[in-house]
Amino acid sequence: MEYSAHQIASLINGEIIGDPQVTVNNLSKIEEGAPGTLSFLGNPKYEDYIYNTLASVVIVNKDFIPKNQVEATLIKVDDAYKAFAKLLEAYNTKTNGLHGIEQPCHIAPTATIGNNSALAAFVYVSHRAKIGKNCKIYSNVSIGNDVIIGNDVIIHPGVKIYQKCVIGDRTIIHSNAVIGSDGFGFTKNDDGSYAKVAQIGNVVIEEDVEIGANTTIDSATLGSTYIRKGAKLDNLIQIAHNVDIGEYTAIAAQVGISGSTKIGKRCTIAGQVGIVGHVEIADDITIGAQSGVTRSFTTPGITILGGPAYELNESKKIFIATRRLPDMMDKLRLLEKEMKELKAQLGK
Amino acid sequence: MEYSAHQIASLINGEIIGDPQVTVNNLSKIEEGAPGTLSFLGNPKYEDYIYNTLASVVIVNKDFIPKNQVEATLIKVDDAYKAFAKLLEAYNTKTNGLHGIEQPCHIAPTATIGNNSALAAFVYVSHRAKIGKNCKIYSNVSIGNDVIIGNDVIIHPGVKIYQKCVIGDRTIIHSNAVIGSDGFGFTKNDDGSYAKVAQIGNVVIEEDVEIGANTTIDSATLGSTYIRKGAKLDNLIQIAHNVDIGEYTAIAAQVGISGSTKIGKRCTIAGQVGIVGHVEIADDITIGAQSGVTRSFTTPGITILGGPAYELNESKKIFIATRRLPDMMDKLRLLEKEMKELKAQLGK
Amino acid sequence: MEYSAHQIASLINGEIIGDPQVTVNNLSKIEEGAPGTLSFLGNPKYEDYIYNTLASVVIVNKDFIPKNQVEATLIKVDDAYKAFAKLLEAYNTKTNGLHGIEQPCHIAPTATIGNNSALAAFVYVSHRAKIGKNCKIYSNVSIGNDVIIGNDVIIHPGVKIYQKCVIGDRTIIHSNAVIGSDGFGFTKNDDGSYAKVAQIGNVVIEEDVEIGANTTIDSATLGSTYIRKGAKLDNLIQIAHNVDIGEYTAIAAQVGISGSTKIGKRCTIAGQVGIVGHVEIADDITIGAQSGVTRSFTTPGITILGGPAYELNESKKIFIATRRLPDMMDKLRLLEKEMKELKAQLGK
Repeated sequence: MEYSAHQIASLINGEIIGDPQVTVNNLSKIEEGAPGTLSFLGNPKYEDYIYNTLASVVIVNKDFIPKNQVEATLIKVDDAYKAFAKLLEAYNTKTNGLHGIEQPCHIAPTATIGNNSALAAFVYVSHRAKIGKNCKIYSNVSIGNDVIIGNDVIIHPGVKIYQKCVIGDRTIIHSNAVIGSDGFGFTKNDDGSYAKVAQIGNVVIEEDVEIGANTTIDSATLGSTYIRKGAKLDNLIQIAHNVDIGEYTAIAAQVGISGSTKIGKRCTIAGQVGIVGHVEIADDITIGAQSGVTRSFTTPGITILGGPAYELNESKKIFIATRRLPDMMDKLRLLEKEMKELKAQLGK
Repeated sequence: MEYSAHQIASLINGEIIGDPQVTVNNLSKIEEGAPGTLSFLGNPKYEDYIYNTLASVVIVNKDFIPKNQVEATLIKVDDAYKAFAKLLEAYNTKTNGLHGIEQPCHIAPTATIGNNSALAAFVYVSHRAKIGKNCKIYSNVSIGNDVIIGNDVIIHPGVKIYQKCVIGDRTIIHSNAVIGSDGFGFTKNDDGSYAKVAQIGNVVIEEDVEIGANTTIDSATLGSTYIRKGAKLDNLIQIAHNVDIGEYTAIAAQVGISGSTKIGKRCTIAGQVGIVGHVEIADDITIGAQSGVTRSFTTPGITILGGPAYELNESKKIFIATRRLPDMMDKLRLLEKEMKELKAQLGK
Repeated sequence: MEYSAHQIASLINGEIIGDPQVTVNNLSKIEEGAPGTLSFLGNPKYEDYIYNTLASVVIVNKDFIPKNQVEATLIKVDDAYKAFAKLLEAYNTKTNGLHGIEQPCHIAPTATIGNNSALAAFVYVSHRAKIGKNCKIYSNVSIGNDVIIGNDVIIHPGVKIYQKCVIGDRTIIHSNAVIGSDGFGFTKNDDGSYAKVAQIGNVVIEEDVEIGANTTIDSATLGSTYIRKGAKLDNLIQIAHNVDIGEYTAIAAQVGISGSTKIGKRCTIAGQVGIVGHVEIADDITIGAQSGVTRSFTTPGITILGGPAYELNESKKIFIATRRLPDMMDKLRLLEKEMKELKAQLGK
């Protein structure tokens, strides 16, 4: 499908500089622009590319003033990247939209599906599950008994949601994430074997949450594991039973949080961090990558780092001193030698 | 559905204290109890809640003696948590049970399914696979050629089992786990590229094992990767080719065990531990979280910790000393200064 | 099915020593060989087993000269392991092959499937996706809009590929891997909440790549995340948006690579390594297990290690010194005491 610069400008409420009749049928990065493509210049550090790009149309920020000649037709908008992304979304919805209920699809007779929600083929919806309005449930998703899904939820292919879990409005869950698997709870028998502790709680994911691909969130042993409003979780994260992740907390990939730990609001947890069970992390705390958090941190707003994790000041000093360790060892040896000589000299 | 305290007590063989006619239709945590719900008091540290709970019926341990007045009807049993979980399981089986073979389901003509096993829609069973009796195979599970599954096995949605793997009786596998993927084996060609080493072994999971969500267990290059009887694996664990995990060993989330390593019986491995290939860990060893195990540990029953991992005593000393490192650096500088002064004073 | 030693020898172009009429119907490891099985001896360290094995036929290397009597029929070939694996593959193709398009399968009318490609039941192929020739797409795989898949590609059960991703010839993707999930990109609003940054790029996987089970590779924010020719990725790896993995680089399980980082050619990255975003790793670099890479390393061919990672020489010294830390602390205390005494003696 082809679009003229004029059509695009009217969609994103932009001002055209150049030929409004030029057409595009694909997208490109500005540094790789080809004739017939639409690109954008958001970050000023890429400005040089605009003077050589072969892209036919480039969306730019309103305040962009070319320093050299530009061949492409420009469209000026408030925020070039956002406008570009919006166009793309509109294009995707038009051409790629999932609509209705594709067959074969397994929907239990007691399940309910809200208006305008779409389910792809090979989706499995179990007994008494409730799916809200305007949801997109992609292929090979399984939704357990009594699951409740809000409105405008997007569930990508292959996600599995165990029984009784609750998913809030506008939440997005990426492929092959698992929500509500059994918590890891066992008691030891006298012979060293284990007896399973029944895991009878659920997971409650509030609204505006995003969950990454292949992330796992276990159900509570009793009660709920919570992912609060607006929290963002990356890929391959482990959230154990009865954990509580605060509002607007962001967690990078491969983090593991052990059972019953409570994370505050607006925290930032970098990649591969591990946090032990039954501790509390206060609001607005930042945790550095690969840290091992072994205790509660109750002062809001601090940064912690290291394995075990300490406050930034202390852990920085430790990192610096650790790097100087071989040198310290040499100095210590020299001092010992000097001490020995000195003592000999003094007849001790 | 509503149940009276009397009905519940007879199901779990309990003694009623209070009104046997009061009814419940839902469950609650004792601290959040609402009228019409059934709760339980297991852990004595929550005892205070029982005097204020609004739950209509509370299951308690036989030896519980109220210190204050309790509004709820009590049901006394040997183990309150177990009784509660048992009730729940009975309830789930009644209302949520998977029965028979749902359609569409792909079952190869040469595959066999034992009596009373249930398969959900979108399950794929390949050539010559054998599934035992009383199994539950949930939606979107794939079972490869020649796989052998025992009796009373539960396989949650989305699990993939590669060809020739063996799954023991009563084993539970959680969603999106992958059993039997190719081991990571390549030989380097002269030009720096890789040739794949054929991975022709399998995975043998013995009886009473539990495997967490999104965990991956690779097939042996030749022979078998073993997960022995009663072992418990949490989520997002990596078990490489030819590993052998001993009986009743428990492994927490995000642990990675490299090829051909052998773990003893009744070991406990905490979260995010990494273990190199081709080593042995003796029986009853505990490995602390995030440890990096770089060699064999052959003394049974010890605890190891750290990256690299040492025995607990040594690693604790290292952790303590590391924390004092910045202070040691200061002291060392002071000593150097004093030594210099002393030597000057002594005319050296 | 039974095969005679003679039949096997002619398939792998081998020379028979012993009875050509003996038959086998299964495979075994040489140390566990049973009558009626075919085994092989590749690694000379297992040579002792060949004198006691009950396997009926054993494939050996051409240069193998028995030191004792061997009961089994031998078949001599250039490379015993390769010959054994080749046999197995032939056997698998014969008995297990996926052929044609199994039903039910969802294939969008605008999608195209090349000659001789096979799709299992419950595969979902979305709008305008193109699948090349001779591919095997196993059950419960989802292929997004506009995905392009080359020739001779193998996609194991449960893999999910998001829209617009590109998969090169002869690439193998293992179960439940996710290709092209949204990059983890958000901007912070004034109230602490997040706005999603549209992720409009894709993933390009070149030819001869292998991707492990449950590995996740995010789409670029704009442009492409690249996995270059011949790269090999193990299980449970996280590749963030806009990362570029060089040709023939091998990455072990549970490694995480943050956004926009560029890894050179022929690098080797051991298990559980984390690499921060926006750095470059030169060609032929080796990174030790569990390392935390916090900056670029631009010298090709070096080995780096530790958290944070330093060059091998330096990090080794640090590891050694760290282990001696408790001892250093004692020595430092002794020196302080001696210094104090010395100064007292000298009347200071």
